Amino acid sequence: MVTSPVVNTYPLSSYTFGTKEPKMEKDTSVADRLARMKVNYMKEGMRTSVEAILLVQEHNHPHILLLQIGNTFCKLPGGRLKPGENEIEGLKRKLTSKLGANSPALVPDWQIGECVAIWWRPNFETIMYPYCPPHITKPKECKKLFLVHLSEREYFAVPKNLKLLAVPLFELYDNVQRYGPVISTIPQQLSRFQFNMITM
Amino acid sequence: MVTSPVVNTYPLSSYTFGTKEPKMEKDTSVADRLARMKVNYMKEGMRTSVEAILLVQEHNHPHILLLQIGNTFCKLPGGRLKPGENEIEGLKRKLTSKLGANSPALVPDWQIGECVAIWWRPNFETIMYPYCPPHITKPKECKKLFLVHLSEREYFAVPKNLKLLAVPLFELYDNVQRYGPVISTIPQQLSRFQFNMITM
Repeated sequence: MVTSPVVNTYPLSSYTFGTKEPKMEKDTSVADRLARMKVNYMKEGMRTSVEAILLVQEHNHPHILLLQIGNTFCKLPGGRLKPGENEIEGLKRKLTSKLGANSPALVPDWQIGECVAIWWRPNFETIMYPYCPPHITKPKECKKLFLVHLSEREYFAVPKNLKLLAVPLFELYDNVQRYGPVISTIPQQLSRFQFNMITM
Repeated sequence: MVTSPVVNTYPLSSYTFGTKEPKMEKDTSVADRLARMKVNYMKEGMRTSVEAILLVQEHNHPHILLLQIGNTFCKLPGGRLKPGENEIEGLKRKLTSKLGANSPALVPDWQIGECVAIWWRPNFETIMYPYCPPHITKPKECKKLFLVHLSEREYFAVPKNLKLLAVPLFELYDNVQRYGPVISTIPQQLSRFQFNMITM
């Protein structure tokens, strides 16, 4: 039989959560965000962003850690690479900025794993596709999602203006209205993995 | 940078398509299908089915080969394993039954590749999930989708009652109404691959 790659998932209760100074969003509206993207594209070319899927388990079911901004909008921890920056190093930098403690000794040793999805933004618009659409020769953004393998104990420092939520796969699945096309299809992208649910 | 696994895709025009005797569906209705599933479950336990994603390219965009039954219903080539049958061997057997020529010398040497998704059927119902839902200890079916790497030339014999279609990823994406939840999210599951579009 074909063996699925195994991912160890530890209980949410085995992690410790603290707070740190707020990390404000750079843009206050979608229009601002797209305008800034356009300015940066002119200077630096296509944006590459990297985002992390951090898995925990509760009740023997995988959950994903999402950052909630305000009352409704959720996003994966991650962000934009600097021009020429290595994807793995860039994602580690972003994770430390978003979730790492101020004291370096407490920052997790981020283990960046499998790339599970790649999304493309053809235009300076919100819509993205899981392929580069035909006839698009100059996509504006490429967003890569990576599985991050957590150790059995970690300390996360959550910026005070954000909430960190553990959302079960069954809540994400088929819920594009709440989580958008990228996050709501993570359950499909993870389906090929075998979750080793560790209880402690 | 992280390198994506590469998949060579050849033009649709490099493949040859013939016909063979009809392969009738075993069931004439969804109700019949679920009833037969129940009978088989009593005898053999959970059903494991395996399906193939066969990729070709047209206009520099990946297309998937789907079998169309009647005017609307599309499915991936594949089927149910025999009890205890190896997944890879079973998928090869099913592909040969569905798409192989009657002459063994013309049957493709099926190269079964990566498992890209696993779907679970918790009950004797049509609904499936890309995870085994919490509290379901006895799922009724597990369906695995595999990438199949085609050579640059192949001959496919299509049963006379079916049509073989090459459907572009952009047609499948976000089209659950037409293709159902399993096939319509294949573009997301393939997004992590890099397609090497070979022109001939």
